Amino acid sequence: MERRDGDLLVVSTDPFNAETRLERQVGIVTPVGRHYVRDHFPLPEPPDRLVVDGLVASSLTLTWAELRAMPARSLFVTLECAGNGRSFLEPPAPGEQWGIGAVGTAEYTGVPLAAVIARAGVETAATELLFTGADSGSVEGRHIAYERSLPLDDAVHGDALLAYAMNGEYLSAHHGAPVRLVVPGWYGVASVKWLARITAIATSFRGFYQAERYVIDGAPLRRVEPRAVITRPTDGAAVGPGTVYVRGYAWSGRSPLKRVEVSSDDGSSWSQVTLGPETSPYAWRAWEYEWLPGYQGEHALLARALDADGAQPATQRWNALGYANNASRPVRIRVP
Amino acid sequence: MERRDGDLLVVSTDPFNAETRLERQVGIVTPVGRHYVRDHFPLPEPPDRLVVDGLVASSLTLTWAELRAMPARSLFVTLECAGNGRSFLEPPAPGEQWGIGAVGTAEYTGVPLAAVIARAGVETAATELLFTGADSGSVEGRHIAYERSLPLDDAVHGDALLAYAMNGEYLSAHHGAPVRLVVPGWYGVASVKWLARITAIATSFRGFYQAERYVIDGAPLRRVEPRAVITRPTDGAAVGPGTVYVRGYAWSGRSPLKRVEVSSDDGSSWSQVTLGPETSPYAWRAWEYEWLPGYQGEHALLARALDADGAQPATQRWNALGYANNASRPVRIRVP
Repeated sequence: MERRDGDLLVVSTDPFNAETRLERQVGIVTPVGRHYVRDHFPLPEPPDRLVVDGLVASSLTLTWAELRAMPARSLFVTLECAGNGRSFLEPPAPGEQWGIGAVGTAEYTGVPLAAVIARAGVETAATELLFTGADSGSVEGRHIAYERSLPLDDAVHGDALLAYAMNGEYLSAHHGAPVRLVVPGWYGVASVKWLARITAIATSFRGFYQAERYVIDGAPLRRVEPRAVITRPTDGAAVGPGTVYVRGYAWSGRSPLKRVEVSSDDGSSWSQVTLGPETSPYAWRAWEYEWLPGYQGEHALLARALDADGAQPATQRWNALGYANNASRPVRIRVP
Repeated sequence: MERRDGDLLVVSTDPFNAETRLERQVGIVTPVGRHYVRDHFPLPEPPDRLVVDGLVASSLTLTWAELRAMPARSLFVTLECAGNGRSFLEPPAPGEQWGIGAVGTAEYTGVPLAAVIARAGVETAATELLFTGADSGSVEGRHIAYERSLPLDDAVHGDALLAYAMNGEYLSAHHGAPVRLVVPGWYGVASVKWLARITAIATSFRGFYQAERYVIDGAPLRRVEPRAVITRPTDGAAVGPGTVYVRGYAWSGRSPLKRVEVSSDDGSSWSQVTLGPETSPYAWRAWEYEWLPGYQGEHALLARALDADGAQPATQRWNALGYANNASRPVRIRVP
């Protein structure tokens, strides 16, 4: 992967997994070279076309030039890995030990999935769309491709994109070139990279990454739980003694973000922050909070996001594979 | 300048001036390395702080760290050079011979100008803010710095930013690092790069770039005139014979964009295009139009933007220095 030293926090090299350094995030857009990467297998040979088949009126084969000639749409989307925050679980859960930076925001440009599916014509018997990436490898003794399905309703009524560009440039290899699926609001697991095939099926797909991973209590993960992160000050910093500008980002995929709150007393009381403008319904929002520390010494700051369905939790909801750990993380600071 | 071969169309090398290749633009954000650059002098030594002085209650000296610690704002802004389109004028006008690509869109992050000015406290006698860049050189026998003023009302009531980041990265040298002014909606001339000083003054500034350049009939240029550009198909292309997806961008700085229209009969009739979503009031919007050519052979497509103040003109409005030439440009295509 082409990247400059220090632009990402590498979690593993084979496959390549690396975090965004959130403390360096400025503005809404995460530069491509600083955006987290979650690969499951070695980089594949890029597929040379997209096949749409299964329970469709007419199977399609689209070259990338044909896809790029179709009407395009651009969306600013925050993608978050379902494993983000796993490393904070007690007791530890298996899997990539992500900190808090398996998240990033980019402008994706591509063709609405619904437009391609409409062209193929899905038969009434179909209930899911299965997406197959070109990446594959050996898992527990089996050779499998990376495959995930979406319920048909979610696939064609949402804003899912067959994206070929990110922040105005054609996708890079580690972000799924030539074309990836982007499912706004869903955990990144749904946004299949190196997309090679879309198959309309009449059954509930039960592949490895659908039924044995990316599940909580057997149910496939869907939309992103709410989360607010504090990016400044950084954990362990000395700040003040005057006004401290606390800043960060907040997002939710399951329902509209309502507000963000900060606590400096371990969650006994919460103060509302100033939210920045909404770039898109699917992108995180920046926030800021002017905090005047009440005393010298050690403090811990908490932030929490509240969406239409409720508040980000204060404590972990442990699960066997360590997904969706969106418990608020304290940022400890010192006022000298 | 760090750039890859072909990412920009170089208009001159000393000073460095180069265009965005609009036919490669994908989505809203123009990558930094593909965004047009307009320099007036060789790259200066970056200033190490910002001075705010003149008719203010208390002069300020802000280090970049101090500026970056202040509450931040991010805005998606289309910047266009006042000379964009100059090369199409008949008869030719002096100056950089820009095609149509002296325009680009980026997310700028910085501190609202109004917040810094409020901290200094402008005296009631002040009528303008004068912005001085660190860039300077010899012009017509005089050594001058790049300086421009803004009327005080425009400066503090608008959304002007003291920007330190572009598309999530700290500014590059050719985009004015460490800090530049960004005046949304105004021609790029107002967005002083390598910003070193802001001075509150009680007179109407008459410096070279205010009174002798960037003027039409003696009046300093202000807000961007409306313009729509066709980016696909490209001029000279063969397309069809079926449906042709015409696409491009449209923007206006003087008033809100209302609609965009395309004509395939030299402007006798116009059809409304589909406008993409608004990313910000200051950013261009993508548009698309499905066109079914009525006959084989040569065609010319025109696009025009209409804002709250009227339509982009069909013909040039020639002026001595060749500014603001937003006449619609025909794109000639052939249907085989």
